[in-house]
Amino acid sequence: MNNLTTPAFLVDRTIVQRNCERMRRKALDSATAFRPHVKTHKTEEIARLQHGGHTGPITVSTLAEAEFFAERGFHDITYAVPIAPEKLSRAAALASRIERLNLLIDSHTALQALESHGGTFDVFLKIDCGYHRAGVDPDDPDSVALVLAIARSPSVHFQGLLTHAGHSYNGRNLDEVRRIAAMESASLTRFRALLDAEGLGDVCRSIGSTPTLSVVEQFADADEVRPGNYVFYDAFQATLGSCALSDCAVSVLTTVVGSYPERGQLIVDAGALALSKDSGPDHIDPGFGYGVVCDERLKPLPMKLVALSQEHGKIETSMRVPVGTRLRIVPNHSCLTAAMYDAYQIIDGDRVVDQWRPVRGW
Amino acid sequence: MNNLTTPAFLVDRTIVQRNCERMRRKALDSATAFRPHVKTHKTEEIARLQHGGHTGPITVSTLAEAEFFAERGFHDITYAVPIAPEKLSRAAALASRIERLNLLIDSHTALQALESHGGTFDVFLKIDCGYHRAGVDPDDPDSVALVLAIARSPSVHFQGLLTHAGHSYNGRNLDEVRRIAAMESASLTRFRALLDAEGLGDVCRSIGSTPTLSVVEQFADADEVRPGNYVFYDAFQATLGSCALSDCAVSVLTTVVGSYPERGQLIVDAGALALSKDSGPDHIDPGFGYGVVCDERLKPLPMKLVALSQEHGKIETSMRVPVGTRLRIVPNHSCLTAAMYDAYQIIDGDRVVDQWRPVRGW
Repeated sequence: MNNLTTPAFLVDRTIVQRNCERMRRKALDSATAFRPHVKTHKTEEIARLQHGGHTGPITVSTLAEAEFFAERGFHDITYAVPIAPEKLSRAAALASRIERLNLLIDSHTALQALESHGGTFDVFLKIDCGYHRAGVDPDDPDSVALVLAIARSPSVHFQGLLTHAGHSYNGRNLDEVRRIAAMESASLTRFRALLDAEGLGDVCRSIGSTPTLSVVEQFADADEVRPGNYVFYDAFQATLGSCALSDCAVSVLTTVVGSYPERGQLIVDAGALALSKDSGPDHIDPGFGYGVVCDERLKPLPMKLVALSQEHGKIETSMRVPVGTRLRIVPNHSCLTAAMYDAYQIIDGDRVVDQWRPVRGW
Repeated sequence: MNNLTTPAFLVDRTIVQRNCERMRRKALDSATAFRPHVKTHKTEEIARLQHGGHTGPITVSTLAEAEFFAERGFHDITYAVPIAPEKLSRAAALASRIERLNLLIDSHTALQALESHGGTFDVFLKIDCGYHRAGVDPDDPDSVALVLAIARSPSVHFQGLLTHAGHSYNGRNLDEVRRIAAMESASLTRFRALLDAEGLGDVCRSIGSTPTLSVVEQFADADEVRPGNYVFYDAFQATLGSCALSDCAVSVLTTVVGSYPERGQLIVDAGALALSKDSGPDHIDPGFGYGVVCDERLKPLPMKLVALSQEHGKIETSMRVPVGTRLRIVPNHSCLTAAMYDAYQIIDGDRVVDQWRPVRGW
């Protein structure tokens, strides 16, 4: 690690392996299909760790990811963002090369776009379980009508119902997250019962957010789970209670480049481009700052990372720390931080043992 | 533009050229040396536009930028972040290949690091003009003592005083920004007077922030200016008054992938990875959102971009907008948004005429 230039994105291989194994085991024990998200890391190496060393079904957030992983042997892919009509040709081309590419739709307009495109698409219907980002209301009769239209359409194979409880990130404690977890799966089961009355009840219920899947002992009431962030976790998840801080597999190695004990401040060479700029779990810990500042062995220090500009991070502390000191920062949101790097430094203890390269772009 | 996949980062060539020319002209008219920052765009093409089509003195925020531009004929470079001791060998290697590489220091510790490294470095002293990020206090006698130590050191050539009024971004109106602009240059002039008494008054005063340099008619009381963001400007600068919205040269092209008129919302395929996640000028316009949402011709729409997750942007609006509609978003902070892309789409009207590639990493 001593030879790395800073800032650098460190991934602790042992912790990633442990996080991957624990979630995979939980899915196995729950007899639930496992289709982990790869958007957090975007690397072939970690996608394989998610499946115990093999390829397997995955979830992606961009077509660039879908194409990257398809080339590397991952042939059963769900693209879990509602698809833009202009991307259908590219999706169709990819679908023809692999076993299955599931698309996501949540409107008649999107269904019509598939139908006008021609060919046949595998499709999940996105359900809104309370996050209110994308998805149809599972209690609205129009949503059943949309499923009927999907089921009748010659252009699609209806694969099931998919939801994501992103609002679990707004939970303030484990009880709240567990309540949202219960609502996440219940929304699909309830909607499936409506479909049952139409003879369409035999469909997959796919759920997933790292908080809701981390805080339960077993996956109940679901046929498939799609966690993603759990491979790395981060300071946000640790504060929320999805994991312990020691489960966080990633950190940004940085160097103190300015020390101002007279005003209780340090400047480090990790700014907004090294850390990304998610404001953290302020709803639980107001003024949390832009990550957890630790020493080189990941022991948290009495320091607060209060501001980020492009290449400067500003720390408030009463500690006297000389210029040149190295620190490690556990980021607030590992998905966004990882995306700032062309290469991850894979560490085993304090040794750099490998470099893994994520796919980028769209 | 129709053939671009979304999200895409659009750069309007005409506006960039106009922004570059206006700032360059102002420096010429002010008889001030011009050393623009390249960290906003990180491309050879725009660095040349900043100098009227030629190479010239530049400011950088990383050694990766310094090396990239040095290879492309920019041989007079200021690295305007306090240097980490571990980077001195790399800096020395680069300095030996070009005409001048100015480093920044603001402490005896940093000076000692240069001295222990060996060789001779060109050095600016960073002054804190009120931003309280990096830099020494210009009213502290210890700061004069540091200059004396620098001037006496055989390891450095003292090149001058450098400051950055980053707190101009916190201004609430033009008057406040102008007041900060006056303080920015006055802090160096005042400190130089103290040095004069020591026979060291013949030094360059280098200033620069896009707001402070945009809101004045002429650059007074400074020997060198280092603006950067002005090449693109952004929604933050337009709100602050550094520019008009029509001066913003960049936007993110995005597609509506979800439309929920029943709850007054849209989802677009530009999320945190397409826009970055700066919260915008909330101190002037609370709840500003994550950028200005416009139609394809950059006419602002009655829409607010209220939330970003990794690949989703959530818009609130009472407009009914079908899935597939394309929008353009003027980002809050163009420096951070540009850094999310491997390639910029250069447009002339609605035609894509080129692709420019920025340097990345550290």
